Amino acid sequence: MSFNTFGHLFRVTTWGESHGPALGATIDGCPPGVPLDASMLQRWLDRRKPGQSKFTTQRREADEVEILSGVFEGMTTGTPIQLMIRNTDQRSKDYGDIAEKFRPGHADITYWQKYGIRDYRGGGRSSARETAARVAAGGVAREALRALVPGCAITGYMVRMGEKQIDRAAFDAEEIERNPFWVPDAQAAKDWADYLGELRKSGSSVGAAIEVVAQGMPPCLGAPVYAKLDTELAAAMMSINAVKGVEIGEGMEAAGLTGEANADEIYMGNDGRPRFNSNHAGGILGGISTGQDIVVRFAVKPTSSILTPRRTIDKQGQETEIVTKGRHDPCVGIRAVPVGEAMMACVLLDHLLLDRAQTGGVRGAIGPDAG
Amino acid sequence: MSFNTFGHLFRVTTWGESHGPALGATIDGCPPGVPLDASMLQRWLDRRKPGQSKFTTQRREADEVEILSGVFEGMTTGTPIQLMIRNTDQRSKDYGDIAEKFRPGHADITYWQKYGIRDYRGGGRSSARETAARVAAGGVAREALRALVPGCAITGYMVRMGEKQIDRAAFDAEEIERNPFWVPDAQAAKDWADYLGELRKSGSSVGAAIEVVAQGMPPCLGAPVYAKLDTELAAAMMSINAVKGVEIGEGMEAAGLTGEANADEIYMGNDGRPRFNSNHAGGILGGISTGQDIVVRFAVKPTSSILTPRRTIDKQGQETEIVTKGRHDPCVGIRAVPVGEAMMACVLLDHLLLDRAQTGGVRGAIGPDAG
Amino acid sequence: MSFNTFGHLFRVTTWGESHGPALGATIDGCPPGVPLDASMLQRWLDRRKPGQSKFTTQRREADEVEILSGVFEGMTTGTPIQLMIRNTDQRSKDYGDIAEKFRPGHADITYWQKYGIRDYRGGGRSSARETAARVAAGGVAREALRALVPGCAITGYMVRMGEKQIDRAAFDAEEIERNPFWVPDAQAAKDWADYLGELRKSGSSVGAAIEVVAQGMPPCLGAPVYAKLDTELAAAMMSINAVKGVEIGEGMEAAGLTGEANADEIYMGNDGRPRFNSNHAGGILGGISTGQDIVVRFAVKPTSSILTPRRTIDKQGQETEIVTKGRHDPCVGIRAVPVGEAMMACVLLDHLLLDRAQTGGVRGAIGPDAG
Amino acid sequence: MSFNTFGHLFRVTTWGESHGPALGATIDGCPPGVPLDASMLQRWLDRRKPGQSKFTTQRREADEVEILSGVFEGMTTGTPIQLMIRNTDQRSKDYGDIAEKFRPGHADITYWQKYGIRDYRGGGRSSARETAARVAAGGVAREALRALVPGCAITGYMVRMGEKQIDRAAFDAEEIERNPFWVPDAQAAKDWADYLGELRKSGSSVGAAIEVVAQGMPPCLGAPVYAKLDTELAAAMMSINAVKGVEIGEGMEAAGLTGEANADEIYMGNDGRPRFNSNHAGGILGGISTGQDIVVRFAVKPTSSILTPRRTIDKQGQETEIVTKGRHDPCVGIRAVPVGEAMMACVLLDHLLLDRAQTGGVRGAIGPDAG
Repeated sequence: MSFNTFGHLFRVTTWGESHGPALGATIDGCPPGVPLDASMLQRWLDRRKPGQSKFTTQRREADEVEILSGVFEGMTTGTPIQLMIRNTDQRSKDYGDIAEKFRPGHADITYWQKYGIRDYRGGGRSSARETAARVAAGGVAREALRALVPGCAITGYMVRMGEKQIDRAAFDAEEIERNPFWVPDAQAAKDWADYLGELRKSGSSVGAAIEVVAQGMPPCLGAPVYAKLDTELAAAMMSINAVKGVEIGEGMEAAGLTGEANADEIYMGNDGRPRFNSNHAGGILGGISTGQDIVVRFAVKPTSSILTPRRTIDKQGQETEIVTKGRHDPCVGIRAVPVGEAMMACVLLDHLLLDRAQTGGVRGAIGPDAG
Repeated sequence: MSFNTFGHLFRVTTWGESHGPALGATIDGCPPGVPLDASMLQRWLDRRKPGQSKFTTQRREADEVEILSGVFEGMTTGTPIQLMIRNTDQRSKDYGDIAEKFRPGHADITYWQKYGIRDYRGGGRSSARETAARVAAGGVAREALRALVPGCAITGYMVRMGEKQIDRAAFDAEEIERNPFWVPDAQAAKDWADYLGELRKSGSSVGAAIEVVAQGMPPCLGAPVYAKLDTELAAAMMSINAVKGVEIGEGMEAAGLTGEANADEIYMGNDGRPRFNSNHAGGILGGISTGQDIVVRFAVKPTSSILTPRRTIDKQGQETEIVTKGRHDPCVGIRAVPVGEAMMACVLLDHLLLDRAQTGGVRGAIGPDAG
Repeated sequence: MSFNTFGHLFRVTTWGESHGPALGATIDGCPPGVPLDASMLQRWLDRRKPGQSKFTTQRREADEVEILSGVFEGMTTGTPIQLMIRNTDQRSKDYGDIAEKFRPGHADITYWQKYGIRDYRGGGRSSARETAARVAAGGVAREALRALVPGCAITGYMVRMGEKQIDRAAFDAEEIERNPFWVPDAQAAKDWADYLGELRKSGSSVGAAIEVVAQGMPPCLGAPVYAKLDTELAAAMMSINAVKGVEIGEGMEAAGLTGEANADEIYMGNDGRPRFNSNHAGGILGGISTGQDIVVRFAVKPTSSILTPRRTIDKQGQETEIVTKGRHDPCVGIRAVPVGEAMMACVLLDHLLLDRAQTGGVRGAIGPDAG
Repeated sequence: MSFNTFGHLFRVTTWGESHGPALGATIDGCPPGVPLDASMLQRWLDRRKPGQSKFTTQRREADEVEILSGVFEGMTTGTPIQLMIRNTDQRSKDYGDIAEKFRPGHADITYWQKYGIRDYRGGGRSSARETAARVAAGGVAREALRALVPGCAITGYMVRMGEKQIDRAAFDAEEIERNPFWVPDAQAAKDWADYLGELRKSGSSVGAAIEVVAQGMPPCLGAPVYAKLDTELAAAMMSINAVKGVEIGEGMEAAGLTGEANADEIYMGNDGRPRFNSNHAGGILGGISTGQDIVVRFAVKPTSSILTPRRTIDKQGQETEIVTKGRHDPCVGIRAVPVGEAMMACVLLDHLLLDRAQTGGVRGAIGPDAG
């Protein structure tokens, strides 16, 4: 019942503040016998790391992860895995103004009211820096998934940034790794660079939408009624900083469809397993995975750190204005891509373990030979 | 870590199948001393009850709730509250065809694969009938909220049905109770009746979007990082049958906004409490309520029970077609309105209790006299 | 976070008061495909039922259990199982005096202080009647265990009642079912009948100690560090009304042993599995079962309902005396035997499911052929 | 669902192995605004630290605790508190023999069977070194308790070591801090030193019993039915390495008492609050604290690391003998005293927070003026 923990059996507790000595993740419930070393996690952290292009915050962080426990002779032992990332760039001199004033659209004011504490150093616990710990934990989940479900893959990419949307017809998965936006479309990558460049120069910011897809996952993941896989993914994504909407498959557009348009018809594959003609459901029926691609999408609001002055109040209740200087992201959604992937990995691994517990892997046969 | 339970401190476990002897909710963690009797719950169940207009399933259920425990001399005692609703209309003769074939877009096939069990009687546990138990439990949450937060209100209404959307400019809260769609717009109510009437006659179905608003709630509800109020509401709504998208405030449209447009500016109210010029955030910043209206929206997909034949397979893996006859809703979203309200009530009460535990009600002062 | 629930994956929530309309257990997490009907549970409830000998309360309860959900065509479905027992003997006329005065040694006073509620009808939720729900739930756990671990057995018996202890040298398992004390020694059964008969006539009461043994259980159940099998069993037993001490294996006497005396030496069995020369550890090492008999013992205090006047206070804070008349057990420990068995069954099933999740059943080999 | 976590709202997850780079505790749910720095925790760690007398292991560990998160400007912030203790003395050269053979009475064999992992370096996760993390976490709980319940105190001491028991008539609380056994009796301290000195020289080991008392705690802590304060304390103590028995108040001896002897009679104190003539119940009735001293006792078995050869098997299933050389405690129970105190502190703080959530601090009045 912890509020810095997610997961049922694969449980991740993140800890640490933006400008404290360190941050990290305590993982409990990782299966034993999974090959693991720090380099396997570093790879994902490097993708999320700030300062990699002019489109992300210029804060310099090494984001080097140490494994302090839970791994022996290169294998997980089944005991808690402690992942620690030291904060190296802790300069807090920029934060003087923010120490007294509340930023509109930011957690400053609610944290102050709830806890009576103002950790003005870059947002403290509410900083998106917390997501580095998620990415590290997601790396562990990926390795465990890889061991349990050979051939599975989890891929995130941006589908919208402000006015710009991808052209689904031009979808090219290979492009994702080739541009700073993880956008699956070479032309979009160029357009978006111009668009965001302008916004950045003007000191503005913009929202984004990210899609994450899991491929090669087995059916039977998820559990009615309150741990539906849709529910779990929605909670996971909505817990990422600045996320305000989550969709599975058709998502909000399901409201506009008829039953005829929405139902994914079923047929038998050559391998004796059920197949579907379409995937409006995002790979989940009744809260349980069908074996199709699992598709989730989420929207990230624009950061409230902008150069245009906004009306606000200070701790004394005086009305004033605020301008947020310092190092910030014009589109925080960019760095949310690896975070969304990490959350997907954690949720799927958790449900793989739950399914082992619940059913022991027994499956209702479909067709003469299926088992 | 139970999958039929939701909530942290106000915990609701629903139980029961569509065509079993009864269904209900086991509530643990309701505070003692809340006035409660069955009539207070019946009121909400009557709103959700099927068969009230030609637009909802013609299944006849009394949906009468009994309180079996947890209430003594008209007050909650702090012990578990057991709410039971007998199923009275259990005829299952209609389900012969469905017993063997899987309905596209329905939980049949995933339940079968996961559990090896086919409860063909109207969907068994995956039936929307489960939501009656949620509505009953939500009634308990409403009474506890009423005792703890005098003057608060929770209101749900439809904002979209297929091609039809409400005109926000014509929003009239008084209309909500006056039409079978709980739509806040008299003209829309008329149009939607025609639209859905046609769909119903043709044996089709359509999706819907519902908005639920909580008014008069205190600030400080919600908890970073993995029990953000947005997260909790997203999980709650996504756990409702057929929901595929959830939004807080601007929701998915936050992806299209700039920082200037999205930030809700702050000023001081006459009562010495902070106020906001707008509510793009849906009343939640950093996962914690601001004291503004809390606004959540969710999309319900169209039911897969339609008269047009769809391709599918049966338990033997044979390809075939299916037509779903029997009593069904052309727009299941209609009856999701009271369910969304119930989930909102449960989540907010839960977080009121959590906030008592976490902070003891201490608040950061804003302004000279605030406390 | 729920206080009327126990278990991690096999979760049992009991509900109901001594004199309300009904009580029962909501079970979430039972595996699908376990054969189950009410008669399988009734068998265990009949053992616990009051009024079966002159040594237990003369309250007459049919204790008939109904299964309201979770079972279809004689098999569990994996959905919540609701078990309900109607209270038939609800006469509360005897309780006038108790409504105002607090019974020394009873939960009256702490419930009143904590909840501000006085459910004077036989103790309300704090009544040992709650244990009927545990026994019913334990029956479900037994059936699931029987399906998963063929040949396992769980047996409880009394080892002490007041001044009387069993003679371990005369231990005869067959005697357990033959006497009203479930004592494994025919001679003891006779002596205890005389002893308790005298106590009953004098309106006194006496404590007891119960031992519960699980045989035929696999190794590898339990989990370090805070879900050690010892820990789980201790919590389970200590949650039974009136229990004040719990022991695993040597228990409190382990304090008196040397390392030489306490270590259970290991050798190889003919079947290539490890065996032990003794069982001081009660079948649990490092929190994990060894495959030996799992042995737990607990002490039940004497009921505070006695005919000798005791000094106390009333709700107005006036000092007074109290004598508890009405129907009561001279040794409540007797009826705790089937309750202890039920708790053991629930804990072991829960850990069987957890072990499936954690390790998938992989085992470190011992010896050349072991797997 | 986590197995390295304890607590409901004050949640402590310990992590780390005996010979890994570090170990520690991740604390989630500490209230904000509690004064805290590392020196407040170091004080308790120093009490538990090995190598302080000839009666504890000669392993040299600085056991210096660092606070990595959750504290800002000397106060807890309500965010997770990460406590890290570096392992400095990691020499593992002594463990060659143990790498292949299983120590009777030790977790070696069950860990191997369950996880297929052999962390032979001093027991890995099953080492009592894990309890350093508990003591650090308990220090945080003590500070929070001190802030919420001024004047409360938690004190542990040994009451038995092998054949030796304390003389309750000679109980002198001031002696506890004056001897290496934390025994409340100067004469016993001398006798025990001789007794244990002999055992140590012979390479033997011995068990112990520890009592922990909480004074000045309010009534109303604890919750029926499955989070009774007795239950929570039993689980907490039984989770400590090598503990095999737990008692509340009279404990196992309650089995021998009559109702007359066991009931603690009630009268009114001069301050208008109820008082009791005795404390057989250990300060807990119906699972809820009475305001009396809360008394728990637990037995620690002798360590299995002894110089006398014991029969065992190795990983290949070969029968052999084992002698455990190296640095070990002749009576591990000594260092369990501060661990028991720490667990008591954590449980009580957790229930203070739960009580705030459940009842908001409302209390049933006893007497005319009470509130």
